[in-house]
Amino acid sequence: MFNQTMQHLGEERSVIRELFEYGNQRKQQIGADNVFDFSIGNPSVPTPDFVQAEIKRLVDTMPPEVLHGYTSAAGAPEVRRAVSDYIQSTFGVPMSANHVYMTCGAAASLTITISALCEEGDEFIVIAPFFPEYRVFVEGAGGTLIVVPSDAHFHLDFEALKAAIGKHTKAVILNSPNNPTGAVLTAEELKQLGALLDQKSLEKGEPIFLIADEPYRELTYGAEVPCPMNFYHETIVCYSFSKSLSLAGERIGYIALSPFCCRADDLFAAVAGAGRKLGYVCAPALFQRVCAASLGKVSDVEEYRKNRDLLYEALTSYGYECVPPEGAFYLFVKALEEDAVAFSERAKKHELLLVPSDSFGVKGYVRISYCVSRSVIERSLPAFLALYREYR
Amino acid sequence: MFNQTMQHLGEERSVIRELFEYGNQRKQQIGADNVFDFSIGNPSVPTPDFVQAEIKRLVDTMPPEVLHGYTSAAGAPEVRRAVSDYIQSTFGVPMSANHVYMTCGAAASLTITISALCEEGDEFIVIAPFFPEYRVFVEGAGGTLIVVPSDAHFHLDFEALKAAIGKHTKAVILNSPNNPTGAVLTAEELKQLGALLDQKSLEKGEPIFLIADEPYRELTYGAEVPCPMNFYHETIVCYSFSKSLSLAGERIGYIALSPFCCRADDLFAAVAGAGRKLGYVCAPALFQRVCAASLGKVSDVEEYRKNRDLLYEALTSYGYECVPPEGAFYLFVKALEEDAVAFSERAKKHELLLVPSDSFGVKGYVRISYCVSRSVIERSLPAFLALYREYR
Repeated sequence: MFNQTMQHLGEERSVIRELFEYGNQRKQQIGADNVFDFSIGNPSVPTPDFVQAEIKRLVDTMPPEVLHGYTSAAGAPEVRRAVSDYIQSTFGVPMSANHVYMTCGAAASLTITISALCEEGDEFIVIAPFFPEYRVFVEGAGGTLIVVPSDAHFHLDFEALKAAIGKHTKAVILNSPNNPTGAVLTAEELKQLGALLDQKSLEKGEPIFLIADEPYRELTYGAEVPCPMNFYHETIVCYSFSKSLSLAGERIGYIALSPFCCRADDLFAAVAGAGRKLGYVCAPALFQRVCAASLGKVSDVEEYRKNRDLLYEALTSYGYECVPPEGAFYLFVKALEEDAVAFSERAKKHELLLVPSDSFGVKGYVRISYCVSRSVIERSLPAFLALYREYR
Repeated sequence: MFNQTMQHLGEERSVIRELFEYGNQRKQQIGADNVFDFSIGNPSVPTPDFVQAEIKRLVDTMPPEVLHGYTSAAGAPEVRRAVSDYIQSTFGVPMSANHVYMTCGAAASLTITISALCEEGDEFIVIAPFFPEYRVFVEGAGGTLIVVPSDAHFHLDFEALKAAIGKHTKAVILNSPNNPTGAVLTAEELKQLGALLDQKSLEKGEPIFLIADEPYRELTYGAEVPCPMNFYHETIVCYSFSKSLSLAGERIGYIALSPFCCRADDLFAAVAGAGRKLGYVCAPALFQRVCAASLGKVSDVEEYRKNRDLLYEALTSYGYECVPPEGAFYLFVKALEEDAVAFSERAKKHELLLVPSDSFGVKGYVRISYCVSRSVIERSLPAFLALYREYR
């Protein structure tokens, strides 16, 4: 009668959303202050004042039918130029505005890129733990998701990668800074990965692409985030302003093709074609311009750092095990029993909402989103301690 | 190396875009005032002041991390409720907020709806002349487009429809007020269509859906636009605020499922699943709220009416043949030779940019978008007259 796969996809809410909805109900039952909701990655730091001011300035100064009218499918020319200039000056990549395609956020960047690349029988490699929607996007485009584990510190496991990349591999999807671990890949790792992909591309007889999903690029606590375009030619950067400018609901980001991509112009046409097929006429026009004016600026990351430090110090002092996150706004903490789902259920009894790691492709951890107000963290600490004591 | 179908889709610009780009080049060569560009359907009437004021009011009054944060995938609850209340009070349909899904504009409404419905072997019927992207959307979802002609006045040809609907028909796509003809379907037609679809659904053994693509709903010049939900149960309305509020670049619209749809909740889940697969996380958050506050309001349609009257009167007085448009902002004019492409080329010599009808699925017409400034129309009239004299 209609598409059952779509129905299931719509019914099966992600584990994260499920927990988030449970939290909302629970808050109504026992009061918002008594529930410690660490389920969702919605930026808690307010959208910066300069963004708010820019919105109003544009409304006051630009002719409205231009400001709110269609842009080219790839974005307003001056916006694409601003993005390519920014990439060029920041990372030293000789970027062209012709290879920048403005999108409705990170998810659109990914579905468009995957759809542009995917041919029958193609495999897309992700590194576990990984953002669960990658599976939906890859399978939705007709590809197969191949999960490769990371090493003990959530960095690249080259032996595992080497074994997984084969003649069906179309692309490797990287996410650094990482959701859910906060790991940031080093220049040395990217160099080694570039060499591996060069070799594997040669064996395959055509390029294997690197898709760099970078919504957390600016959210780091000292770690440098090297630009993958500088380490591998066949790189496609999928960016979003959702987290850096606290604009998650406005759906604005971009796809940037490395100027060194083989047949970059043809690949760009495929990106445009995929955007057209999926119904993305253009990225939201007002926010294209707001973001072009805000390139390189970022909302108050210090707030997230304070949250991270407070939570990390407290939890490890209680005895929890956790690799210190270098970026993003998540702690990936070892569950106190083997079954992370059972552990998450037990945490609920303490009104702690922690996402079990299973849907991220690994077992035995929980993800704690610390993009919440400071007071939630402060008030949650006794609950974390009590939970720990229940086990040890 | 990557997907060739997508590459071709990206390279093969639509005829409309091609002409539009030609116009931009030509304007640089001979001055903008000397080119009469009737190619594109970008609203020329400014976005209303109440929309601009509402944007600023929301920025000034709502907490920014809420205003610009994620909403639920289907939209902010209060926005969905406002839309369903509006549909209920305007059309008398007992609409539920649970069946409203906010989207990134009309194209997203359509790709999501078609993807939610489409199963292997499915056919989607469109009435020629039709918006050319329907083909991209239907084929992109794996369906087959079936083109059915309209009658001499661009209204429904029931004999042709009856013959085309069969056991593979998943849905009929209607577009009223119509792009490119400006025709508005009457209540009597919708009633007859509803009866036909009821009968054909019975024969098929499952519902055939009616997809009502309604971006021009409010752009009419006296004609009433009946709500198809009142004439057929299995109706899915795809709406956009692009034209009614001159917000084409902001990508905001909705899908509304008739409350009488069989298994409406399951169908809604399929819509949500399709949105998820295609990468639509939520509709742009600020404009969800702006549009909720502007329901039932519309930009200055009188401006379009004046354009229509001026152009229609002049062209028919010269001898051009044209059915008077009842809505939207296009004139569909008979070409002065059999080959509309050749006619469009000849019009170019007079600096008139008119879209040949071939890509709309009929031969021998041109589409004239009169969403342009009055002065463009006034200055173009001698060129239209000279073009006519060249033929007759």
